[in-house]
Amino acid sequence: MPTETPLYLSLADRLAGLAASGSLRPGARLPSVRALSEQHGVSVSTAVQAYRTLEDRGVIEARPKSGFFVRRPRSLPPVPATTRPPARPVTVEVKAIADAVYDLLGEPGFISFGAAAAAEGLYGIERIRRALARSAQAHAGSLGRYVTSLGVPELRQAISHRAMSLGCHLDHRDVVVTNGCTESVTLCLRALTQPGDVIAIESPTYFGFLRAMQGLGLRAVEIPMQPRTGLSIEALEVALDTQPIKAVIAVPTVSNPMGTIMPTASKKRLAELLARRGVALIEDVICSDLAPSDEARRAVRSFDRDGRVMLCGSFGKTLAPGLRGIGWVEAGRWSAEVANLKRSFSGGGSSVVEWALADLLEHGGYDQGLRQLRRHFAEQVDMARRIIGTAFPAGTRVTDPSGGYVLWVELPRTVDAIELYRRCIEQRIIVVPGPLFSTTNRYRNCVRLNAGAPWSAEREDALRLVGRLAGDIARGA
Amino acid sequence: MPTETPLYLSLADRLAGLAASGSLRPGARLPSVRALSEQHGVSVSTAVQAYRTLEDRGVIEARPKSGFFVRRPRSLPPVPATTRPPARPVTVEVKAIADAVYDLLGEPGFISFGAAAAAEGLYGIERIRRALARSAQAHAGSLGRYVTSLGVPELRQAISHRAMSLGCHLDHRDVVVTNGCTESVTLCLRALTQPGDVIAIESPTYFGFLRAMQGLGLRAVEIPMQPRTGLSIEALEVALDTQPIKAVIAVPTVSNPMGTIMPTASKKRLAELLARRGVALIEDVICSDLAPSDEARRAVRSFDRDGRVMLCGSFGKTLAPGLRGIGWVEAGRWSAEVANLKRSFSGGGSSVVEWALADLLEHGGYDQGLRQLRRHFAEQVDMARRIIGTAFPAGTRVTDPSGGYVLWVELPRTVDAIELYRRCIEQRIIVVPGPLFSTTNRYRNCVRLNAGAPWSAEREDALRLVGRLAGDIARGA
Repeated sequence: MPTETPLYLSLADRLAGLAASGSLRPGARLPSVRALSEQHGVSVSTAVQAYRTLEDRGVIEARPKSGFFVRRPRSLPPVPATTRPPARPVTVEVKAIADAVYDLLGEPGFISFGAAAAAEGLYGIERIRRALARSAQAHAGSLGRYVTSLGVPELRQAISHRAMSLGCHLDHRDVVVTNGCTESVTLCLRALTQPGDVIAIESPTYFGFLRAMQGLGLRAVEIPMQPRTGLSIEALEVALDTQPIKAVIAVPTVSNPMGTIMPTASKKRLAELLARRGVALIEDVICSDLAPSDEARRAVRSFDRDGRVMLCGSFGKTLAPGLRGIGWVEAGRWSAEVANLKRSFSGGGSSVVEWALADLLEHGGYDQGLRQLRRHFAEQVDMARRIIGTAFPAGTRVTDPSGGYVLWVELPRTVDAIELYRRCIEQRIIVVPGPLFSTTNRYRNCVRLNAGAPWSAEREDALRLVGRLAGDIARGA
Repeated sequence: MPTETPLYLSLADRLAGLAASGSLRPGARLPSVRALSEQHGVSVSTAVQAYRTLEDRGVIEARPKSGFFVRRPRSLPPVPATTRPPARPVTVEVKAIADAVYDLLGEPGFISFGAAAAAEGLYGIERIRRALARSAQAHAGSLGRYVTSLGVPELRQAISHRAMSLGCHLDHRDVVVTNGCTESVTLCLRALTQPGDVIAIESPTYFGFLRAMQGLGLRAVEIPMQPRTGLSIEALEVALDTQPIKAVIAVPTVSNPMGTIMPTASKKRLAELLARRGVALIEDVICSDLAPSDEARRAVRSFDRDGRVMLCGSFGKTLAPGLRGIGWVEAGRWSAEVANLKRSFSGGGSSVVEWALADLLEHGGYDQGLRQLRRHFAEQVDMARRIIGTAFPAGTRVTDPSGGYVLWVELPRTVDAIELYRRCIEQRIIVVPGPLFSTTNRYRNCVRLNAGAPWSAEREDALRLVGRLAGDIARGA
């Protein structure tokens, strides 16, 4: 990673500063790319990159045939406060409601703000199909052959290549292809822990982690999250002082459900803190490619000097949801152990699918696809926040995610999220209730909403209806 | 399952009896199909089926344009005796050599009698490729969508449909698609056990089970195997009396490494014994479709009345090795628990691959393919036994498997199998040493040989060389 800020980024930052201070008014027209390049003495491509970055951040917008404009702020609900989970460890027990929610996530006939998946139309389906056909043709012989269970070398190389954009240099022989990011995290936990061990997690956290931890008989201590800057390192330090923490699970870049990206300086501090304490980090980078810049994508692992950060990812959120069942893990100093565990507990994947994915990663226009995805998601999230601002009860707060497509909505204290979930189901709408994201009884007035799907009149109406139902509950109706 | 023996089977049994008693001499020509049908007053198709069954069993052979003949017995080595493992439970620890063997299994540049996989040429690669292309075309939209993690309904239905040929009636909603049979077994163990629990296993047993058990901190008690009839039910009963056995793992149909098929009556007794004791059976049916008849295929599960038999399978051995990463489990009374564990620890598979497999199972000529595979395997195994009979040291014994393509070779006591493995590796040949198949120090003079690949002059020479190397060790050279 370069230590100096790239030119386009410092230019983008300067323009963002002018917009934030009001020097550039909302709706103001920006100089053309050529004019910008001349005004600042930079190349045209640097100017283009600066504008793209600002578009991705939602600071400016391109209007066809008119140029670039500063976006108008809208009346938006405030962001939730830093969370305050209890400081003691709790044996992880997934709530019964979680199973019910899980069972519904794949059901047709619902308008879903549930599963954290984007709409199928946003991915290059035809490109994926062709890559699969090409792979099956080129590697037909493999259809009649067992593969080694750690993944085909081409995919492991492609993963190691992609990890460079996270600031990480991985030897592809240490990369293990898994059956998805959940398996990656489970393998890491298994390599690190015994039943009863304490793991520090973000609060709120992705419920899949809680399921895996329950399955392994682990205890969790929840660490506060700041909606703008992520995991509270101060609180983690206190927890490390007072609890026998064996490992930390975190999603430093585009967390779930909050969508937070930790500032790079915090990522570095986190790496240093854990190195000092000799505690492992399981770093989930599943949504890192949805972050708006290379800088934001940078992994905690890139600051790791002694192999204590285990990196887990997949391409289900960013490339081909239907090719899930393909995740990966590079487990640092535990690489050999994780490879052995993988071989012990599950077979290898389908090699033709692995080759297809390698092909898509290396030659499939992955980066252009990402830029498009990010733009769509930013717009869809923006729309959701505006609807929430007008249709949800007074006092509602909602995150302003730095990437990804999920929103964490904090409703007035009087709204029970499980009751809201039930009323939504009656209307054939799915939202995920807040208590799923914690081991304690927190977040009873929160829901996670997925804004990954493009908006339609039907979806807009459905989200407004969620707001009205929440209002009914708030009023005791 | 019909309780009466089908006509073709009783006819085949009668003819086999005549051949066994010598009434039909080796080399004797059998009546034509038409003559047989007239002589026994059965339809032509029944006569054809009877001859096919006898062909599959290796009792008779078809010679092109000449008709059917009783096969000549050859000078073959004797079958090993019943195994005698120690009766006490042992904490499972996979030997270091196992990792080395595993790493080599996928390596090119070796002549492999290692991995229990057949040669790629034996599978309908082009058919698989087309099914995959069709599936990706028909379900293109799914490439951009997450699936539920338990498998697409069409595949679960196809699996339930196929299970009928094992005498089992499975509700497809209880079938969970897994990442291979290893994951299926692991999920069952996880649903049933805590670390330290005792599991009864066949001795020798498939080393993959041992790896999974080690990973879960389990103890194993090994039960003797009779090379002709499989697991000793008497010994299991004694073990159940004296040890706190939590579950049994068995491969009653085409066991690995012995290739044994338990007689149907024994399967029934096993089911009844375990029902009386309230002990669960994890029944691995991965190679059941390689058994020569429906009768032989019949699962212990078909006699289960209270949901204590968990069925685990895959199609990697019988349909499409390259589509591995697709196994299944139907866990009886633990179905809901296993489904939850699956969701907790790993994501779903690639749905286009699952649909392709469903298509192949339902419309891909699976049964014809199986008949061909069985014929090839029987011939290949036969050839291997003959080579072993002539090229291996005096005193060598080898199994006469009822199905499948692996052989269990018992060398003279003076031959250390790990030393033999090492000398073979120097010659770029892979065999799997016996100690991998046990938790104790048994089987030091045994190796497993895979005869799944078609013979070539090179492979024949290699197997003879293995025999010579074993002879060298036997003579202390």
